[in-house]
Amino acid sequence: MTAPGAGASGEDDLIARYFRPLATDPGAFGLVDDAALLNHSGDDIVVTTDAIVEGVHFLPDDPPDTIARKALRVNLSDLAAKGASPAGFVLTLAIRDAAEKWLAPFARALGEDAVAFNCPVLGGDTVSTPGPLMISITAFGRVPPGKMVRRTGAKPGDRIAVTGTIGDAALGLHLLKGQGGGPDRSARDVLIRRYRVPQPRSALAIAIRDHASAAMDVSDGLAGDLAKLCAASGVSAAVSLADVPLSAPALALITKGHSSIEAAVSGGDDYEVLCTVPENRWESFVAAAREADVPVSVIGRIEAGAAAPRFLDAAGQPVVLKRLSYSHF
Amino acid sequence: MTAPGAGASGEDDLIARYFRPLATDPGAFGLVDDAALLNHSGDDIVVTTDAIVEGVHFLPDDPPDTIARKALRVNLSDLAAKGASPAGFVLTLAIRDAAEKWLAPFARALGEDAVAFNCPVLGGDTVSTPGPLMISITAFGRVPPGKMVRRTGAKPGDRIAVTGTIGDAALGLHLLKGQGGGPDRSARDVLIRRYRVPQPRSALAIAIRDHASAAMDVSDGLAGDLAKLCAASGVSAAVSLADVPLSAPALALITKGHSSIEAAVSGGDDYEVLCTVPENRWESFVAAAREADVPVSVIGRIEAGAAAPRFLDAAGQPVVLKRLSYSHF
Repeated sequence: MTAPGAGASGEDDLIARYFRPLATDPGAFGLVDDAALLNHSGDDIVVTTDAIVEGVHFLPDDPPDTIARKALRVNLSDLAAKGASPAGFVLTLAIRDAAEKWLAPFARALGEDAVAFNCPVLGGDTVSTPGPLMISITAFGRVPPGKMVRRTGAKPGDRIAVTGTIGDAALGLHLLKGQGGGPDRSARDVLIRRYRVPQPRSALAIAIRDHASAAMDVSDGLAGDLAKLCAASGVSAAVSLADVPLSAPALALITKGHSSIEAAVSGGDDYEVLCTVPENRWESFVAAAREADVPVSVIGRIEAGAAAPRFLDAAGQPVVLKRLSYSHF
Repeated sequence: MTAPGAGASGEDDLIARYFRPLATDPGAFGLVDDAALLNHSGDDIVVTTDAIVEGVHFLPDDPPDTIARKALRVNLSDLAAKGASPAGFVLTLAIRDAAEKWLAPFARALGEDAVAFNCPVLGGDTVSTPGPLMISITAFGRVPPGKMVRRTGAKPGDRIAVTGTIGDAALGLHLLKGQGGGPDRSARDVLIRRYRVPQPRSALAIAIRDHASAAMDVSDGLAGDLAKLCAASGVSAAVSLADVPLSAPALALITKGHSSIEAAVSGGDDYEVLCTVPENRWESFVAAAREADVPVSVIGRIEAGAAAPRFLDAAGQPVVLKRLSYSHF
């Protein structure tokens, strides 16, 4: 991003108008340079990158402010799951035209989230595209040296925990697409909001760093993401579907037969944290989560072996999931 | 990027097949995690991000290997201009489908450039798009603390230098679009190659860091980019158009009236370095550039004042440029 000047182009004007006011971090140089400086303060730098595409990760008529928040928050969710505190981000914004009506609320919401999550914008690139809108964000986090939480540390006997509730976003997307039967208006709004605006568990980052043996964020469906964590750690798992935390609106839809627990655990876009915690750290983890005001639930145990995770019903019988997660390819 | 496992999705397979072999840096964790670790070794971390879009920054029938190289090299060019040594990159790849025919040469070329420029892939995100291909790269560089070269340090009396030759890529694009009269085949190939595959001046990074007062890469046209550098530094400039370095093919096209020096200095995609060097550092800078085997040319001087840079013809008369640079908006 560059500033306007004698040679100001359309891109420069756009950046100066909408994004320079957000670039308050000294390392952003007010977006008047080709590059930014990322302050590491001696910590390890955690880097994550996630993009969202119109028609794929958000809907064409989603409000611009929710698109901005989702683009940043899916990255903040990754940082939280790695135990990292946000340090800043850069964005690539691919747009068809520089419409005030869209850019103003987009930039305002992005700036609000940057402040709310203490993750300043450091720079970016704005490009013209004839195709769908796309926002790609690379976010940076800090952890004390050697303390990034990997997917690889889960051990047999560890408890498997998830934050918040699972499946809301997938149900919200179904409702937005006109699929699935009718919850009341306020339940509908809750589920759609969960799809449009994830709530990254940034408040839990330090608890995860201090106590989890492995962690990742749940973005492609709990079942598939747990399978990935287990594969990376070289372990298996048993999950009790009855213990998977559901919101009241999700539970109502499932109870009425409009959806299913299978859909909830294989849908995407939860942006909750999935982590494994050794038995002897569990109480400390729960205390830290309570302190951070983040709800956590135990859904199962890590087991030895290389088998795919088992999902059990309330009677302890295995449930075969038709699909584990969502893939766009 | 994530690895395949029991929950492998199409994206996981794609990443494992094409990109995991490139992820040899320990901080990339073999792309089996949600995030990477960027090793700073106590240096300052320079961050830059640049995206290229099909039909905007490259042509739909450009070969996939040249697209990969361009995507990475436009970012390496920014790092070089900031005096930074490459430290790694993450990419977002938005593609319509996972075609082997396109992905295999793309990934191979990206891996070759990562090795050639010592800039390892650390991670990324692969997304599906119904629209044009897009590659967004965020690249990281290292400089000793406080040593990033900004756009803001140019002082009256400093020499203005550029690397290599100017205008080739813009002429190459004109030829690809079927515009502009006919150079011979080999001249044509040289110019088109300059459009498709920039040559980042990474070898000059340390010389820039040690001697330049201000620097940026020339991506939107020399005239407009110099105007930006002057605006950022609060200075003006005088440039002798006769001193702007031209390649033999560009000179031939201009001499025959198929193009003009104005087109050369306002075209984009040069990816050369524009820098200002104080008089007392000039000899050391030239010696370091020679050592690095990078050609540099003086094109003018920084002057006091806030006026737009002046461009002078061989007789010292001002030339009015119809446009200074290229903008996609």
